[in-house]
Amino acid sequence: MEKFKVKAYGTEAADAPLGQMDIHRREAQEKDVEIDILFCGVCHSDLHVARSDWGPSSYPVVPGHEIVGRVTKVGGGVTKFKVGDHVAVGCMVDSCRVCESCKKDLEQYCIPGFTGTYGAPDKHLGGHTFGGYSEKVVVDEHFVLKMPDNLDLAAAAPLLCAGITTWSPLRHWNAGKGSKVAVVGLGGLGHMAIKLAKGLGADVTLFSRSPNKEKDALDLGANQVVISTDEQQMESVRGKFDLIIDTVPYVHDLNPYVSTLGVNGTLVVVGYLGPLEPMLNTVPMIMGRKSVAGSVIGGIAETQEMLDFCGKHNIVSEIEKINIQDINKAYERMLKSDVRYRFVIDMNSLKK
Amino acid sequence: MEKFKVKAYGTEAADAPLGQMDIHRREAQEKDVEIDILFCGVCHSDLHVARSDWGPSSYPVVPGHEIVGRVTKVGGGVTKFKVGDHVAVGCMVDSCRVCESCKKDLEQYCIPGFTGTYGAPDKHLGGHTFGGYSEKVVVDEHFVLKMPDNLDLAAAAPLLCAGITTWSPLRHWNAGKGSKVAVVGLGGLGHMAIKLAKGLGADVTLFSRSPNKEKDALDLGANQVVISTDEQQMESVRGKFDLIIDTVPYVHDLNPYVSTLGVNGTLVVVGYLGPLEPMLNTVPMIMGRKSVAGSVIGGIAETQEMLDFCGKHNIVSEIEKINIQDINKAYERMLKSDVRYRFVIDMNSLKK
Repeated sequence: MEKFKVKAYGTEAADAPLGQMDIHRREAQEKDVEIDILFCGVCHSDLHVARSDWGPSSYPVVPGHEIVGRVTKVGGGVTKFKVGDHVAVGCMVDSCRVCESCKKDLEQYCIPGFTGTYGAPDKHLGGHTFGGYSEKVVVDEHFVLKMPDNLDLAAAAPLLCAGITTWSPLRHWNAGKGSKVAVVGLGGLGHMAIKLAKGLGADVTLFSRSPNKEKDALDLGANQVVISTDEQQMESVRGKFDLIIDTVPYVHDLNPYVSTLGVNGTLVVVGYLGPLEPMLNTVPMIMGRKSVAGSVIGGIAETQEMLDFCGKHNIVSEIEKINIQDINKAYERMLKSDVRYRFVIDMNSLKK
Repeated sequence: MEKFKVKAYGTEAADAPLGQMDIHRREAQEKDVEIDILFCGVCHSDLHVARSDWGPSSYPVVPGHEIVGRVTKVGGGVTKFKVGDHVAVGCMVDSCRVCESCKKDLEQYCIPGFTGTYGAPDKHLGGHTFGGYSEKVVVDEHFVLKMPDNLDLAAAAPLLCAGITTWSPLRHWNAGKGSKVAVVGLGGLGHMAIKLAKGLGADVTLFSRSPNKEKDALDLGANQVVISTDEQQMESVRGKFDLIIDTVPYVHDLNPYVSTLGVNGTLVVVGYLGPLEPMLNTVPMIMGRKSVAGSVIGGIAETQEMLDFCGKHNIVSEIEKINIQDINKAYERMLKSDVRYRFVIDMNSLKK
């Protein structure tokens, strides 16, 4: 298959910093869209995969799955996009297209597994896929999203992961007018969960361990903040919530949050992958028909729905723009939660 | 308040066997139904409360919440029942009637807490409530169920707890034609879950550790049996089920069962109250939008719906009838799972 060289930023080993490298992209095929990448959000996953935190990664790792760009070429069979369109690519660049999940627009739950934007087997060129820390990307049009005209493209980039990851459970569990939604943790995901739940018309509460996040949360649209280490505050919201979106990316005790769910309430874990320690207690779940669930990103149609909703309600992320050359420093700051609330790389910096 | 004496069977202490004693029932008030108890099922909870297994019980304990009987008197305001009717009483004899749950016919999730048929504060006579191991019981008509004419009254008694406990999650999570339901554990609850899921039209699988339960399960209506200790058999049902009703009453690993849920599947714990050990892993939950939930008995309207359904489909429990004088022996056998599948006390034995 024909391919071409592009500049990228990635790493050759778990303990090496990211640096500039060359990678290849396939020439646009029949259904492909070639995209000049303008902005790329920086997700915690980028760092975890770069450093093999989730098991050994295939190197080189070129991270990035919050991609916004401009179409520079389309294959002959492409019907949804034309050169010059502003488009986006999220966490998936392919899936099997034929399984029960794919047929229901749930590509994120593709039974054989979706093709991740980086680090997944590349069906076209062999090797593995490379993400958005690069000049260009070539993606089948089914996995390309249209960007609403009115949104700031840099600030919209995190919608492609942080946005859809919180949007999908909000929609699946019917958050909206009259529903009481709580968000655990105020980071990249948490701040989007507040904005989107608010946009959907829900009454929104932030659970946080840090009293100093209160002002930010209210500014983002939360109706109230509950300090989760304050027993009295926790007691005051016992049995209150219909839905809790738990965005905390490390192991933590879910039991105090389950107690704040009302009858039929659901707590959805979107941030932490692993065993639940301390152990989840079934008593409050049984005595209130409560659920603990998980959710990952969202389907392609649902991602477009979210982008259109954000366009209509003028919702974007709070971001700090960086040059690609500052990515290693950004990772260090991200580890210390020193970012409000998402780094976005101005990919023009790679072209210099 | 006027009251009268009735014979009962109960215990004065956690380590004492059950024996005959006298208790009092209130005279039927305006909305009350006085019931001559014909049969009473024996639930694991009876034994646990008698022995203070779930924390210190109030003694004397008179267990029994699978009650079937005949109306002997009604208060002036009773509209649903008349003397001579065959009726039933389950796990609840009252609730607050005004909270959000009660207003939605979810008395089992009454926010201040429902009044249990035994061991709960008695709003009328003071002290605590006494269950169905007795000659008579007096209950507000809202908590009294009509028995279908065609069912064997003894075999129908366990529907009031084992039946509704499995019916409610089957209905809430929409089990029916085209859905794949699995049941974990074949005891009092499990055998009812199979019969009811089958009655609803679902494809039913039993998970069991004992190969010798296979024939029984198929006879009860299961489509297949999966031996949960056989890795190959477990692998063969990976991602298959829409709903799992887990009736196992002791701590056990849920993770292997979660793996057999399909995308959007739910595992409902109805048997085990306590911390989930080993720890529940969020990875398969997140990667398949799966839920782990709990559920307790069912509302009164839902219990009537279940009884009517059982009447229509001629569904009752598999029982072994005993005399009240054999209750201590029955408890010992129940602890060894030596019962197919529910003991039911012929309460006539108490009158001798």
